[in-house]
Amino acid sequence: MSVTVNSYDKGMGRWEPNARGRLEQAALKLYVERGFEQTTVAEIAKLAGLTERTFFRYFADKREVLFWGARAFKEVIVSSVAAAPETAAPIDAVAAALEAAGEALQVRRDSVRQRQTVIVANAELQERELNKMGSLASAISDALRERGVKDLAASVTAEAGIAVFRIAFERWINEDGPGDLPQHIREALNELKAVTAG
Amino acid sequence: MSVTVNSYDKGMGRWEPNARGRLEQAALKLYVERGFEQTTVAEIAKLAGLTERTFFRYFADKREVLFWGARAFKEVIVSSVAAAPETAAPIDAVAAALEAAGEALQVRRDSVRQRQTVIVANAELQERELNKMGSLASAISDALRERGVKDLAASVTAEAGIAVFRIAFERWINEDGPGDLPQHIREALNELKAVTAG
Repeated sequence: MSVTVNSYDKGMGRWEPNARGRLEQAALKLYVERGFEQTTVAEIAKLAGLTERTFFRYFADKREVLFWGARAFKEVIVSSVAAAPETAAPIDAVAAALEAAGEALQVRRDSVRQRQTVIVANAELQERELNKMGSLASAISDALRERGVKDLAASVTAEAGIAVFRIAFERWINEDGPGDLPQHIREALNELKAVTAG
Repeated sequence: MSVTVNSYDKGMGRWEPNARGRLEQAALKLYVERGFEQTTVAEIAKLAGLTERTFFRYFADKREVLFWGARAFKEVIVSSVAAAPETAAPIDAVAAALEAAGEALQVRRDSVRQRQTVIVANAELQERELNKMGSLASAISDALRERGVKDLAASVTAEAGIAVFRIAFERWINEDGPGDLPQHIREALNELKAVTAG
């Protein structure tokens, strides 16, 4: 039998509804307004109506607020690639996975947009973001090999998928209104198929 | 009438044959053996049998030894894209440009390999390398638009080209013997065409 232990049970202080979300919103607001470097954890906690201690229960540091979703993002993609029908072509397995990830970003558009503003303004954060995309390409490539796709085909498909995603993301994030990231992903993939067609 | 002025004429000291190449070789050797951070300009100059002053005539700093070729590399690619026959499909214009760049790297394989060892070992250098590839993708995309290729097609083709190049480079650099980078580029591109074929 397993018992769910929340922070209240653990005696880690008063349970706060949606503390992670409130901290994230407060942090993004301050990072955009004042800059990432200039914002302190104390200010984030204060704006969220929480304590610094609560902040550190959810995030290792200021930077983690921007990157905690990366693991889940990668898992969505990798597990979608793995779960694609056996008959699906590698590029279509990757496309479906990227669309699923795109849908997850679509519903968080405002936060994603704020996050992007913060990252673009800071070289160190950009570096981490680039590394994240590189590690995502490797993970996709591994997932394809698990499906029996050969090395070169797996690498090429994964990198092409990331290229498609990056272009679609860029178009979506710079668009007014809510936009439609999964649709941009489909369009960019179709364009890739068109430009590489013999 | 233009007159070629060399450093001897400028009174900047004794003219040294192939000073840039000797400094580069010495620097790469030391960066690989001792680490980039641990190497000083004085040590590089000494190993090359030249002075620090001569070093700074060719390179702004230690890092520039690794990146001075980036501009020429980009120019080779962008001008090849521009020079491709009007009838060439965008992806083939990019492929031809990457092959030309690949041939230039092929003849410098030993240096390229040493350089890669140094970059992989240092996060800051990796960041600059990633930025370099990003700026190369933009430059290719611009060159395609100059040829009348539409925005999305230009972006997708450029990013796909960079993905192909990166994969080919990785396979080549990890290979024993001289290898054949242009051949790897052709293979990766053919694989891309195969995986995206309807």
